[in-house]
Amino acid sequence: MKYNQYAYVKTDYKTQVEELLQIKFLPSAYQKLSFGALLAELTANTVAVIAPDAKSARNAKLAEFAVSDSERLSDFLDTAPEKIDCSQFYNVALQLLGYHVGYDYQLSEPLKFMQKQGLPYVKNIGDKKHLIQAFYRLLNTRAKNGQLLIDVMAGEGYFYNRRNQFAKNKFLFFNGKSMPIFDTSKVIREVVYVESDLDTDGDGKSDLLQTTIFRPIESENLPVPALYTASPYFGGMIDNEQRNHNVDENLSDATEWTNPQYQAAPVVKAKKPLADSKESYKPVEQAVGKSSYGLNEYMLARGFASVSAGAIGTRGSDGLRITGAPEETESAKEIIEWLHGDRIAYTDRSRQHETKATWCNKKIGMTGRSYLGTLQIAIATTGVAGLKTVISEAAISSWYDYYREHGLVIAPEDCQGEDLDMLAETCQSNLWDAGDYLKIKPKFDEMQKVLLKKADRKTGQYSDFWEKRNYRHHTENIKCSWISVHGLNDWNVKPKNVYKIWQKVKNLPIQQHLFLHQGPHYNMNNLVSIDFTDLMNLWLVHELLGIENNAYEQWPTVLVQDNLKADKWHDEDDWSNSIGTETVYFPTDNNELTKDANGMQKVSFTDLGGTEFKKAKISENDWQYQFICGNPKWTKASLRYTTDEFIHPVTIVGRPEIRMRVSSSLNKGQISVALVEMGDRKRLTATPKILMPGEQELGFHFKVDSLQEFMPDRLTHAKLITKAHMNLQNYQDMKKPAKIKAGDFYDLQFELQPTYYTMPVGSKLCLIIYSTDQGMTKRPLEKTVYTVDLAKTAIKFSLK
Amino acid sequence: MKYNQYAYVKTDYKTQVEELLQIKFLPSAYQKLSFGALLAELTANTVAVIAPDAKSARNAKLAEFAVSDSERLSDFLDTAPEKIDCSQFYNVALQLLGYHVGYDYQLSEPLKFMQKQGLPYVKNIGDKKHLIQAFYRLLNTRAKNGQLLIDVMAGEGYFYNRRNQFAKNKFLFFNGKSMPIFDTSKVIREVVYVESDLDTDGDGKSDLLQTTIFRPIESENLPVPALYTASPYFGGMIDNEQRNHNVDENLSDATEWTNPQYQAAPVVKAKKPLADSKESYKPVEQAVGKSSYGLNEYMLARGFASVSAGAIGTRGSDGLRITGAPEETESAKEIIEWLHGDRIAYTDRSRQHETKATWCNKKIGMTGRSYLGTLQIAIATTGVAGLKTVISEAAISSWYDYYREHGLVIAPEDCQGEDLDMLAETCQSNLWDAGDYLKIKPKFDEMQKVLLKKADRKTGQYSDFWEKRNYRHHTENIKCSWISVHGLNDWNVKPKNVYKIWQKVKNLPIQQHLFLHQGPHYNMNNLVSIDFTDLMNLWLVHELLGIENNAYEQWPTVLVQDNLKADKWHDEDDWSNSIGTETVYFPTDNNELTKDANGMQKVSFTDLGGTEFKKAKISENDWQYQFICGNPKWTKASLRYTTDEFIHPVTIVGRPEIRMRVSSSLNKGQISVALVEMGDRKRLTATPKILMPGEQELGFHFKVDSLQEFMPDRLTHAKLITKAHMNLQNYQDMKKPAKIKAGDFYDLQFELQPTYYTMPVGSKLCLIIYSTDQGMTKRPLEKTVYTVDLAKTAIKFSLK
Repeated sequence: MKYNQYAYVKTDYKTQVEELLQIKFLPSAYQKLSFGALLAELTANTVAVIAPDAKSARNAKLAEFAVSDSERLSDFLDTAPEKIDCSQFYNVALQLLGYHVGYDYQLSEPLKFMQKQGLPYVKNIGDKKHLIQAFYRLLNTRAKNGQLLIDVMAGEGYFYNRRNQFAKNKFLFFNGKSMPIFDTSKVIREVVYVESDLDTDGDGKSDLLQTTIFRPIESENLPVPALYTASPYFGGMIDNEQRNHNVDENLSDATEWTNPQYQAAPVVKAKKPLADSKESYKPVEQAVGKSSYGLNEYMLARGFASVSAGAIGTRGSDGLRITGAPEETESAKEIIEWLHGDRIAYTDRSRQHETKATWCNKKIGMTGRSYLGTLQIAIATTGVAGLKTVISEAAISSWYDYYREHGLVIAPEDCQGEDLDMLAETCQSNLWDAGDYLKIKPKFDEMQKVLLKKADRKTGQYSDFWEKRNYRHHTENIKCSWISVHGLNDWNVKPKNVYKIWQKVKNLPIQQHLFLHQGPHYNMNNLVSIDFTDLMNLWLVHELLGIENNAYEQWPTVLVQDNLKADKWHDEDDWSNSIGTETVYFPTDNNELTKDANGMQKVSFTDLGGTEFKKAKISENDWQYQFICGNPKWTKASLRYTTDEFIHPVTIVGRPEIRMRVSSSLNKGQISVALVEMGDRKRLTATPKILMPGEQELGFHFKVDSLQEFMPDRLTHAKLITKAHMNLQNYQDMKKPAKIKAGDFYDLQFELQPTYYTMPVGSKLCLIIYSTDQGMTKRPLEKTVYTVDLAKTAIKFSLK
Repeated sequence: MKYNQYAYVKTDYKTQVEELLQIKFLPSAYQKLSFGALLAELTANTVAVIAPDAKSARNAKLAEFAVSDSERLSDFLDTAPEKIDCSQFYNVALQLLGYHVGYDYQLSEPLKFMQKQGLPYVKNIGDKKHLIQAFYRLLNTRAKNGQLLIDVMAGEGYFYNRRNQFAKNKFLFFNGKSMPIFDTSKVIREVVYVESDLDTDGDGKSDLLQTTIFRPIESENLPVPALYTASPYFGGMIDNEQRNHNVDENLSDATEWTNPQYQAAPVVKAKKPLADSKESYKPVEQAVGKSSYGLNEYMLARGFASVSAGAIGTRGSDGLRITGAPEETESAKEIIEWLHGDRIAYTDRSRQHETKATWCNKKIGMTGRSYLGTLQIAIATTGVAGLKTVISEAAISSWYDYYREHGLVIAPEDCQGEDLDMLAETCQSNLWDAGDYLKIKPKFDEMQKVLLKKADRKTGQYSDFWEKRNYRHHTENIKCSWISVHGLNDWNVKPKNVYKIWQKVKNLPIQQHLFLHQGPHYNMNNLVSIDFTDLMNLWLVHELLGIENNAYEQWPTVLVQDNLKADKWHDEDDWSNSIGTETVYFPTDNNELTKDANGMQKVSFTDLGGTEFKKAKISENDWQYQFICGNPKWTKASLRYTTDEFIHPVTIVGRPEIRMRVSSSLNKGQISVALVEMGDRKRLTATPKILMPGEQELGFHFKVDSLQEFMPDRLTHAKLITKAHMNLQNYQDMKKPAKIKAGDFYDLQFELQPTYYTMPVGSKLCLIIYSTDQGMTKRPLEKTVYTVDLAKTAIKFSLK
């Protein structure tokens, strides 16, 4: 398994020496030391658990290393060496990197092991210059736990032990990244209340928004950037899953659609900060140490404040949760306005004492996944001042694409029956405080009714309600730089969300990056195969501290994790159909899928909705796996067309598009289409496997994280590549339903979720046409016969 | 689900007032305050996130509470009340305890909810005295997250915010328990090297034992007790599972037994500390913040040092791991000798600078589970000075009972093929340091051969090798008080280990307690149904700080968790057959199990070893469940006898004993016997369900833990109560094998694992007689026919 490394900045020898002196690794008198003395000194320095002035302890540790299968480092040093062999050096280095002799590697062949792990090494270490270069590279090499060695050393006390040797209240950079020299034992954790321009609970007073800040104590004297995570879950999550909406119901006639309109909440004008007022009260409320997002904690140890806020409706804040609405964006954005000095906040809800973010350098980045990533997109599209960059993971770019698709109610994976109203309730955690409950509950009940009605589960159609929840129509306002991260197997927030906004963001005059990993609804901070956390360090130092560290040239615009080998990442300039070549496949009368010619038959299948599924008492995921594998119990309700085995690997990129002519036995209908890779083989785990639990120290005696990676797993028969669903009544217009007649044929054309999927040699591609998707669509109670005219059916996609 | 509470110490009003004043909860001028003002003040004091002097913020928080479904607390206080109704008070109290109005409880019926949760309340709060009593009880009531409210408040900063009001360097007690007033941001984490009298690696020098100490900074001026966890895994665990021994082999003739002898390792005499020497170097090596045992972390915040050591063979220490041997006990014990001032330690492995445990009050308790609990038993039986108490969880009391049973090789659950040699390798983590590896590896290889040979997987018989690993033969040396914790469903360290040592410990002139929970190989610190952590606080304060806090009278000698209702705990004076009434059941010719009369037939079954099991490709656990449920595929290889449905619940207590007459078609054989509860019902989860992940703050901005409990789970058909295995060749003597003849009948008599199991109404008890137990016994390759003479077969157990 290769430890790929993208965040290592190429550095000349002179700069290497300067930096090593700055971090107090290279002794200032290094030029006077012999080769052997320098080797001893630098090796002992890497043993960060020992106090730098404890000579006997440092020497004793040198006996715990070996340079070969017969010689300890201490004995080698006793020979007063003038040089060290590459394999001798890396026997010691591998041990420093956390590998275990005899178990991970053999003392006789260290380089062979390093090549396997993709670890860099210096070939000739015949003099002090090369020795220094080798150590510089080693400190910036990823250890077994996935972290850079310098970060491992930091977790063992390297910087803590030398804390008096560094300038107070300054950032320290090494190879372009900020080092964890901030005192994590004294982090300031405080709560303030930002005053909004909104009055979503309609009490005539501006809503106050509880905001939690974790910041280094050094920020009392050194303005620091803020990493802001807008988390609607921060106040707690109301567990209402058990009352998810019923999905076991027939489709409705979509023409009953009334185009529900977005309705704005009341606004008030909050007091604005006076430009010349310096008066600021100290916060009086402490934040309880919640485990927040790992990336924020990692950066906190490196001098970046971590700010969390739930905004309207969440615990400690006023107002109503109105998921996806412009009010939600506004309230979450207002926290940035306070951080930037453009809005006021109070020490408590009595609104008496104003408090300022004097500790902030007014440069703000955003982080977070899922809903927390979504709000980054929402806020970025306002162009708010102070927001310099977003690192948006698994984010929704249009709420219609989260709860709906092509005129149908489509659930996120594992969330059948959930809808926007329920998510709003999940986040309405200010109901938990009884005093707030008395005031909010009646208004909340009313808003819940509005949300349920306007979201229109009946027809599933697009409307003004959803249009106001589509951030993609405001991308022209984006001023900050942009990083998107998404799982190619994310069936919760489906990849279309990132794909469609990427098509706009990529053309903006900003710096932008995209990472696509092989996970589901997940983040990728600690993968073996990529040094994502280090990249983010480099990026944030560049964007929020203004340090020139090559961050813009350091890695490709798009990086895509391979679906066959987890430690292979593809470099791309873009993610779109245009990076491949258009190819069209046709279903034949013999259930083949070929490039040659269409079938001519009209073929039917009978959909039974959820009837059989409910009887089987299996999970939705089990159903899906059995269905794509071709279990006859389920495939009756589908048409399936399969290619020959691929004799060369090919990669499907972008969004496949299906066109088909179809009729329904009723005057309504839903069509689902899936592309599946068929073939018995060991595929990667669906989620990364935790490899070294809790072994990444994010600072000194601070939070921890765990290395993980997708690993080869047990044999499976098939894998879903992509799918899509469509309402027949939208055959004319995706945004407007039409009447259809039972038995009449209609031409559909729609895109599947985007992908980047390599078909291995020997696999087959299968196109499945069906209707009820047990985990996502409504599950009708009635029988429907669908007939497909193969002569007018084809699937088109890009191959590379 | 009831939050049972055993650790609340009944306290008179005068003491309550004193304690409330001491913790600065009750204002010193409390007598001058009106009822309403006192209510406001005390309620605000519970909102520990707010700085005590932040008046407006404190007042603002009072508006977040409600006293009824129409009145906020702030409005109620505005009426200058002279009393508060019980339901008004507990509406506020429930919110303080972390419950959510509208979701957990209704403002109209707080007391109904409190009764359901088993929460105590004061009925009339008509004056200030009763108000103070109500608050005293409330602070000592378990919150929704399982912690006492005062501990929740501590996690929110209660003591931190008032840190200048408490005496420096003193313990603070409340209701008999130590409070977390120690500065967890400044914990000292250091490493020292204790010098052993052993030279297990035979290099002529005493082995040094790396010892890690986490202690409060206050211990620089205040001697504190030490909680010592002897953990062979502390240096890391070598993963060697993939080379577990083959268990798919035929039984051997046990008379090939040679009674392997224990062989002592070399000893040297370490330098002893001089009585009057005060010279002590400060440690120079820092410990990396590892997540250690939750109970230790909890007590660390409360002033108790946490000491961990792996002892011989582990990383950073010299020597060889010799699992279970007296050398292992000796080396783990020597850490206590250093803590107690009776042994020396160095700052590093160069042995130059001696360092003393001057911070220790010389009173040591031990903690830990599994191997870590085992070493508590081992060390307690040495009677070492300084060891005052052990809290030994899921511990082995004789290594024969871990890897062997009645003349057979029997694996711990989920560890088929593991043996003592492999566990020794798992812990030999000093191999990971290459310098140590060069020295140790050849000696380690040699020791591995010795352990494998002497453990004698061939015959499975008891021997001197095992005798020296049986701590129960040294219980007369025990001087410390004793707490044992064990899961009644622990099939890794089987309950016989705790049962057999309990039979000895209970008669010693020491204080002793036993907790039996419903888990497998697990600890019970954070269960909803019992306040175990609070009990341990009370206990350790009594034992290690010498405070009289009623700890000895506070809870029953034996507490047993019910297997039907997780929140019911049985009080017992003892755990033995004698707490029930002896009952005998007989198998009949009609496969019944009755109290009336024996069957007269001789019946046979054919054992196929592991043949069919391996073909089925299912896990050992799946096999066991299918087997006990009566899946015909597996039951062919067994005899099964079942009672009628029980019409009253009865509880099987202690160790059932089977006697049976049996023949084998070969001149060898293994017999297994299981008692199973049959009946379709929803049983409890096998492991506790995590209910509030990470929501227990063990100190202020310190480690966290999670509330958990066994919860009603999905329907299952049967549950294993107990089982046992026996080698036919031990029919005469459990400690000495005999020849047997194929086809001849032999009388066996042996005890099953102990239990405490309530058969619910409608369930049936099933006795299963079989041979190969796929997850535990060897799995022969050959066919064996066993014949049982029912006329001479009966099972005896105690019922209550």
